Amino acid sequence: MLSETKHILSINSFTNENIEGIISRADHYRLCPQTDILKGKIIGNIFFEPSTRTHCSFQCAVHRCGGSTIDLQIEYSSTRKGESLEDTIQTMEQYCDALIIRHPTKGCMKVCADCTNIPVINAGDGCGEHPTQALLDLFTIQQYHNINLPLKIAICGDLRNSRTCHSLIQLLDRIYDQFEFYLISHENLALDDSFVRSLRNKCVYGSELSSVISMVDIIYMTRIQKERIQDECIIDKNICITNDMLNMAKSTTILMHPFPRNNELPKECDTNFRSKYFEQMKNGVYVRMALLEYCLYG
Amino acid sequence: MLSETKHILSINSFTNENIEGIISRADHYRLCPQTDILKGKIIGNIFFEPSTRTHCSFQCAVHRCGGSTIDLQIEYSSTRKGESLEDTIQTMEQYCDALIIRHPTKGCMKVCADCTNIPVINAGDGCGEHPTQALLDLFTIQQYHNINLPLKIAICGDLRNSRTCHSLIQLLDRIYDQFEFYLISHENLALDDSFVRSLRNKCVYGSELSSVISMVDIIYMTRIQKERIQDECIIDKNICITNDMLNMAKSTTILMHPFPRNNELPKECDTNFRSKYFEQMKNGVYVRMALLEYCLYG
Amino acid sequence: MLSETKHILSINSFTNENIEGIISRADHYRLCPQTDILKGKIIGNIFFEPSTRTHCSFQCAVHRCGGSTIDLQIEYSSTRKGESLEDTIQTMEQYCDALIIRHPTKGCMKVCADCTNIPVINAGDGCGEHPTQALLDLFTIQQYHNINLPLKIAICGDLRNSRTCHSLIQLLDRIYDQFEFYLISHENLALDDSFVRSLRNKCVYGSELSSVISMVDIIYMTRIQKERIQDECIIDKNICITNDMLNMAKSTTILMHPFPRNNELPKECDTNFRSKYFEQMKNGVYVRMALLEYCLYG
Repeated sequence: MLSETKHILSINSFTNENIEGIISRADHYRLCPQTDILKGKIIGNIFFEPSTRTHCSFQCAVHRCGGSTIDLQIEYSSTRKGESLEDTIQTMEQYCDALIIRHPTKGCMKVCADCTNIPVINAGDGCGEHPTQALLDLFTIQQYHNINLPLKIAICGDLRNSRTCHSLIQLLDRIYDQFEFYLISHENLALDDSFVRSLRNKCVYGSELSSVISMVDIIYMTRIQKERIQDECIIDKNICITNDMLNMAKSTTILMHPFPRNNELPKECDTNFRSKYFEQMKNGVYVRMALLEYCLYG
Repeated sequence: MLSETKHILSINSFTNENIEGIISRADHYRLCPQTDILKGKIIGNIFFEPSTRTHCSFQCAVHRCGGSTIDLQIEYSSTRKGESLEDTIQTMEQYCDALIIRHPTKGCMKVCADCTNIPVINAGDGCGEHPTQALLDLFTIQQYHNINLPLKIAICGDLRNSRTCHSLIQLLDRIYDQFEFYLISHENLALDDSFVRSLRNKCVYGSELSSVISMVDIIYMTRIQKERIQDECIIDKNICITNDMLNMAKSTTILMHPFPRNNELPKECDTNFRSKYFEQMKNGVYVRMALLEYCLYG
Repeated sequence: MLSETKHILSINSFTNENIEGIISRADHYRLCPQTDILKGKIIGNIFFEPSTRTHCSFQCAVHRCGGSTIDLQIEYSSTRKGESLEDTIQTMEQYCDALIIRHPTKGCMKVCADCTNIPVINAGDGCGEHPTQALLDLFTIQQYHNINLPLKIAICGDLRNSRTCHSLIQLLDRIYDQFEFYLISHENLALDDSFVRSLRNKCVYGSELSSVISMVDIIYMTRIQKERIQDECIIDKNICITNDMLNMAKSTTILMHPFPRNNELPKECDTNFRSKYFEQMKNGVYVRMALLEYCLYG
């Protein structure tokens, strides 16, 4: 039954119907954030890279579903004795009902999924994908914007290295027929041309957020992925927002950020009514509850 | 409702009535150490400094109350990507019902509390305060000494840098009208004059424990806070006790220590009937159960 | 009642009747892997050395028994402030109902057990013993081989430094009357003569697995314990197996390994029907459930 295991490796792991169902269940959990669907289940967290939000919100989601977690402490595991990724995965499979994995190597999730019969959830693979983040972003967007209307989004910052942007853009492009992407970045941090050409919806490149801010319905800021960039000069040239700029946006526009943030999103924006990034984090719990349900019972 | 959130930032976060109530509930939990008042609740542990007793006893308290914990692994969190303390707090707020925080910066708990709507419990802020330790110390004292009688305490060691001493002395000074403090330390490790002058009860400075040991009802030893002291010479000059000294104390005298200990409290004292430091640790669980109840339902 | 505390320090902590009972209960948990015998109980994990399988399978066992764990993060505990092992144990005793301890110092478990009234379970003491691994190995062997028939085992690799081998050989030697041990290792990694002379059953030394592989009922591979060996040359000379070699074994022969593995056990063996090492890991959960039951209620 290997082929029926419900892995979440990328946005392509879902059909549009899957996504609709997950969003609907997340909305249910937003209203009823306590269940016991994971009673007696053990979810393994295997994080080879630092994480605050993804790790903690998955822990929170497991607890709110009545389950338990085992958190492999990488620095204090057999990885230190040279154990391979496959052996770690196949070991944790013996103890757990599903695995949540973050790893610095782009594309390694397929390797993980191929060696186990329990669901693998990609919690970020290098500069590859971050599908659960994309789903919580979509869920947040749908809380504020009618799914049937045309929408414009400005996605700003380190588009090249941000796995969050890759997954989000692919997801929005699939779900929506009337989307417009404004890709605002330093030229060295732009998305690959091939990636952009594969999209169905309209894409516009740019390097000035201020020139589009009054037009868009969603502003999606991201930090520079310092840990993935060699050139020091670029690090200081991120696309930034200010509260004054934000006030030029429409009153229905929402401001999002996957966090952590650096100087591209100053604290002065936190109290602006358009800022939804803390709500976005909380939505991560509801979406991940729905995703755990999907993997184990979907 | 921000102002109604029940933070525990310092001893001053409580009225005397609050303290009486918490001590009373701790006594209840000492007899019935299992409840489900935290069922469905998630408590976040955020420790920026090492901890054994405070961290583990809070975990124990949460489990004994039927709740779950999320332990942010600082070394493996977005703190490594430069995330600010406020952002970490406001993130954890999305996933938790209360936060337990230890941080090396004195006074930073107000910053933490100001940015969140869920209760913040100070688990130690540098050389500032450690209110939950002070409460468990008070609870332990009241197990052995009638609250209505005059009491003498010798507090020994690194009084300047010990947050535990700061919080404990303030607490005892408030609760008791007939207390005498014997502050026994190397001159460079004495309490600030201004701190001592602010106390209501009698204070006596000294540098010899042996000269007061037969008079006092409580001996409270502390280690040198090496991590907060530059001068190597002082580190070797802590106030020490021996079992022979301890036997000069009254039979009703109790010996306490917040731990960890170094050479100021030799293992030979462990079997002396006056030694209550392991019981003191266990009391930490009951007091912290009562504190969690106070924060969330008090 | 100190003497009645049920510690698991070595294989000698058990009578043969104890072992029979534990194996029987493990078999019960293999069929019914969910219980609530640890409801309201807190088990402390204190790992001073890296661990994946032992740590995670004990966590899994505690969860499957309905209990909670407190995992002392050594690197972030008072061990960093110079706290002694005894103080750490006696502290954790205040918060927990049993302690699972791994430590680099051979023989230190007696020190741990002597200072506490709650059960101590040895999860590996340097190159000393690893009794819970030996029991899960025995359990796995008994799944495949009738306990009343004579058996031959080839134990290969770093026999000198492997605590797993020490505990396993002692256990098998006690339980079985008709066992034959083929001890296959580099001469510098052989078992101590005194250890081998203490065994009741037949022992044969060797350095070639291929010469005995067709005779034995169990092949038990181990990695070189690099962290315990100075001589670099030896590290490259481990006894290795290949799938071709494995196919020379009888069809009833089983291949085991305590993991982690290095090059002595190539992945090509994973799909051979004789390979039982992942099943062996899973058995660790059932055996550890039975061991927790034995310690707390046995």
